[in-house]
Amino acid sequence: MLQSRNSLASYARDVSHIKLALAQVNPTVGDLSGNRLLCLEVARQAANAGANIVAFPEMVITGYPVEDLALRPSFQAASERELGRLASELLDEGLGELVAVVGYLKGTSDGDSQELGVPRGAPMNCAAVIHQGKVVANYAKHHLPNYGVFDEYRYFVPGERALVFRAFGTDIAIAICEDLWQDGGTIAKLTDESIGLLVVLNGSPYEREKDDVRLALVKRRAAQVGAPLAYVNMCGGQDELVFDGDSLVVDSEGAVLARSPQFHEDILIVDLTLADSTSRNELASGEHIVVLPSSIAAESVPLTTPQEWDRLDPLGEVYEALVTGLHDYVAKNGFASVLIGLSGGIDSAFVAALACDALGPDRVYGVSMPSEYSSEHSRTDAADLAQRMGLHFRTVPIAPMVTSYLDNLGLTGLAEENLQARVRGTTLMGISNQEGHLVLATGNKSELAVGYSTIYGDAVGGFAPIKDLPKTDVWALSLWRNQQALDSGQVPPIPESSITKPPSAELRPGQLDSDSLPDYEELDGILHAYVEDDMNLEQIVALGYHPDSVARVLLLTDRAEYKRRQYPPGTKVSKRAFGKDRRLPMTNKWQDVK
Amino acid sequence: MLQSRNSLASYARDVSHIKLALAQVNPTVGDLSGNRLLCLEVARQAANAGANIVAFPEMVITGYPVEDLALRPSFQAASERELGRLASELLDEGLGELVAVVGYLKGTSDGDSQELGVPRGAPMNCAAVIHQGKVVANYAKHHLPNYGVFDEYRYFVPGERALVFRAFGTDIAIAICEDLWQDGGTIAKLTDESIGLLVVLNGSPYEREKDDVRLALVKRRAAQVGAPLAYVNMCGGQDELVFDGDSLVVDSEGAVLARSPQFHEDILIVDLTLADSTSRNELASGEHIVVLPSSIAAESVPLTTPQEWDRLDPLGEVYEALVTGLHDYVAKNGFASVLIGLSGGIDSAFVAALACDALGPDRVYGVSMPSEYSSEHSRTDAADLAQRMGLHFRTVPIAPMVTSYLDNLGLTGLAEENLQARVRGTTLMGISNQEGHLVLATGNKSELAVGYSTIYGDAVGGFAPIKDLPKTDVWALSLWRNQQALDSGQVPPIPESSITKPPSAELRPGQLDSDSLPDYEELDGILHAYVEDDMNLEQIVALGYHPDSVARVLLLTDRAEYKRRQYPPGTKVSKRAFGKDRRLPMTNKWQDVK
Repeated sequence: MLQSRNSLASYARDVSHIKLALAQVNPTVGDLSGNRLLCLEVARQAANAGANIVAFPEMVITGYPVEDLALRPSFQAASERELGRLASELLDEGLGELVAVVGYLKGTSDGDSQELGVPRGAPMNCAAVIHQGKVVANYAKHHLPNYGVFDEYRYFVPGERALVFRAFGTDIAIAICEDLWQDGGTIAKLTDESIGLLVVLNGSPYEREKDDVRLALVKRRAAQVGAPLAYVNMCGGQDELVFDGDSLVVDSEGAVLARSPQFHEDILIVDLTLADSTSRNELASGEHIVVLPSSIAAESVPLTTPQEWDRLDPLGEVYEALVTGLHDYVAKNGFASVLIGLSGGIDSAFVAALACDALGPDRVYGVSMPSEYSSEHSRTDAADLAQRMGLHFRTVPIAPMVTSYLDNLGLTGLAEENLQARVRGTTLMGISNQEGHLVLATGNKSELAVGYSTIYGDAVGGFAPIKDLPKTDVWALSLWRNQQALDSGQVPPIPESSITKPPSAELRPGQLDSDSLPDYEELDGILHAYVEDDMNLEQIVALGYHPDSVARVLLLTDRAEYKRRQYPPGTKVSKRAFGKDRRLPMTNKWQDVK
Repeated sequence: MLQSRNSLASYARDVSHIKLALAQVNPTVGDLSGNRLLCLEVARQAANAGANIVAFPEMVITGYPVEDLALRPSFQAASERELGRLASELLDEGLGELVAVVGYLKGTSDGDSQELGVPRGAPMNCAAVIHQGKVVANYAKHHLPNYGVFDEYRYFVPGERALVFRAFGTDIAIAICEDLWQDGGTIAKLTDESIGLLVVLNGSPYEREKDDVRLALVKRRAAQVGAPLAYVNMCGGQDELVFDGDSLVVDSEGAVLARSPQFHEDILIVDLTLADSTSRNELASGEHIVVLPSSIAAESVPLTTPQEWDRLDPLGEVYEALVTGLHDYVAKNGFASVLIGLSGGIDSAFVAALACDALGPDRVYGVSMPSEYSSEHSRTDAADLAQRMGLHFRTVPIAPMVTSYLDNLGLTGLAEENLQARVRGTTLMGISNQEGHLVLATGNKSELAVGYSTIYGDAVGGFAPIKDLPKTDVWALSLWRNQQALDSGQVPPIPESSITKPPSAELRPGQLDSDSLPDYEELDGILHAYVEDDMNLEQIVALGYHPDSVARVLLLTDRAEYKRRQYPPGTKVSKRAFGKDRRLPMTNKWQDVK
């Protein structure tokens, strides 16, 4: 039964009060029954808090992104089955009145996908509206991102119809992620309607400074549709992506009513006063309109204080993204512990700090592997950081193994330098195989760009937590992390001398990174312009860098593509990470240097 | 001046004789000036043979596929500049009358790409018609493949208009690659027109048995448009893809008039008698129609005998694909030589045979690295094959290095097994660094699927020639290659005992692959069904495999995704190779086993 004051014929702009819950959860790709149970538990908590509606992230049932799993009929069927189970379970638990908006994958008939260039059998990226134990409506994502890390034209049939459902005396519209970012499509269709609320389901990965862009966008779209907008995003890590949550609700003028924390699970509960609306009569034909038969507005539920979590500062945000990405790769893949080669340098020290923050020091194993070229301070810095952080620590000198290769193979020069790195890699992998740790590679983005690493040497690892972090940011974040410790009266985890000493691979006597690379400030500036901002030689030189340096850095970067192909995965934090975000041929004679 | 008998008003179905050249060339990605010069040289040869028209493959100016290079404004500008240069150079050399149809990349204004979901600044995948020193017409590819290894929605703005140009008294239409494979679009527009010839530019990668599908398709499309169809494809390797050429011309009934060799460069010259046609007046408005001002039909050129090269047999075709892929990766990346660890087993023996056929034995270096668990026959088989093939050979026992690790790390069991493989990997990389060879990884597709390899051990290498070849096919192709040698009175390269002995990694006493894996016939059957035919557990069991074996193989395959991410690139020969052809998350709890 609809509320009496909201008859279908009424055009009065009366108001309803509802309690909306945004479920900022961390699903796991492929764990469909686990994700269903997570939704059920959160729905329970939301209902206990008096919520009338609970909204979950994009594809929460399957996890996101599922890549080619999307195309498997058995996977699509499982997604629909788990969604149906969730609907039944909600009813069974007496939560039938709760309106749940749930992202999932829905199969299509072959015919749907034919003319769109997507493979036969592609599904739709959908939001289901669940009420009284049933899926009462479906919305399919209209705009499919197909740039950067996204390949959604490969996977999904785009939706073509808007969805508005009437509940609690107001008309509520649904959109999914990219629909919010692109003009046209769903948002354009809603602009001229008088909807009462727009709910947007997201699987929007973290990038530096993206949260500000996202906030501005949410404000703009709310004003555009003339209604409050509720933005729910997932959190947690999936391979190279981290979802930062940051769910929020703005009113129809774009003022922030509530905002979830970044990176952490949260149920954001907001009391909304919504204009009763009657878009139904005006919506273009062909769009979905669903009227829920028996929803009642929760006018009697007392208002809760709107929550707005503090934003992390720009460095803290990156640090938290890296901790989350590492934590979830370890947790979701079932590793008990991690192993890190500790050189005494800043990269491995910083990775150790991340690992201790992500997993606790008892799950972090460090090994110092000094060679004859290792400085005394390298050994002491490694031991010092292990002691500061309280992680497990051992020392394995590599001289005996290096000597046995040299005696048998007669390597010299660069081959001898690389050999040392590979003996360390083999040592780490041996300990890993023996004891069951996940090895972490400690290379940073600057090294990865110019190929300043030894493949199968320092590049070994199952995960590379800072592969998308330029060297200058490794320093900045190390200082930041130490300051955090000082501010809370703790021992700074990273030895001061690891931060201040000149970087060196210590593979030959007196070697310094600056022997073969530009100064890191310059290198990172050029790399940012080339990799993230897509500038060419001329444009980068115009920024004030020396043409020879620019030409050299671009050439080194192009030539190292083959090394990056075999590098471990690691968390994306920048606008453009190496990997699926930036796809280039290895065999490539193009130089942007002419 | 048009020919007098072909005035624009004429509807008479007279005939013209023309000589058409299909330039089956091997461009290099990113070498735009080199590719232009290649086109110029081939155009010269075609003109010397009396050709009136020469057609080049898809994106011949840039090479193909160029991945994200397509989105760089400087790359787009260079493509257009080189095309313009080619037009001028043809005129300068007195070849202005020759009609050249050339694939290239053409920039678009930002506006063109906006609503299609492709990034701003995406170009079009175009064919230019060059005549009298000018680009007189452009056709943009309509259907963009976005499945398997293709991501063309990421890169290109689709064309929307057909192109027909009148030359030599007939109307000639253009299509590009996927346009031929999909119904609708360009082909549909041409179906009701009376065109005289359809020329299709291709960058169509090799897959087993694809040439038969392609031939049937070409025949069908010719009949559909009621005109001869000329299909020109590139040849050569680009990273993981091999283009097999196989250019061909069929008449309007689909009968093959001429066909180029597979995998090798060729200029296919065909005399065609074409109906003069006047589709111009009937073509739907909005399509391109270009009339070349002064083309003359080459009625006086004597007919040449149509060529039709023999097809390779099914195994020979795969072998040639693997040789081509390896050869071009080595050649286009400027390596002088390759290095292979020779275990005495079939995989490394077969890779050595491929390398000798691709590069000549003088550019192939083999190293036997026996351990205490290596059988006597392993050592002698490795030496035997080196002697049969005439490649460079040395022996480096790994015991001293293995012992030094064991003494210092105390590894046992699987860790000790993996250690041996990693000492071999480090040894190969050391020799590679010292002497400059490209290391070849010798793993096959069956191993790669189930993770039966040691990461940073036997998996090291810059290229993995047989990573898409199942173990059973390694045997079949080894027998085939030996038989080829016998048939031509040469010494079979692969030792008989490497083919016949039971496979073993020889990492512990008496170890056999069959201790931990199903029989390879069974394993490969299950893998083919799962990986290439996308079947689920139930469907594979229905083929007659034991449910436990199927469940185990699927689980092993799913769990090895992380290893495949760090595996070297290698030539795709199957319908679905691991890598960009099959994109799956590493963090993934989905099992198709329930």
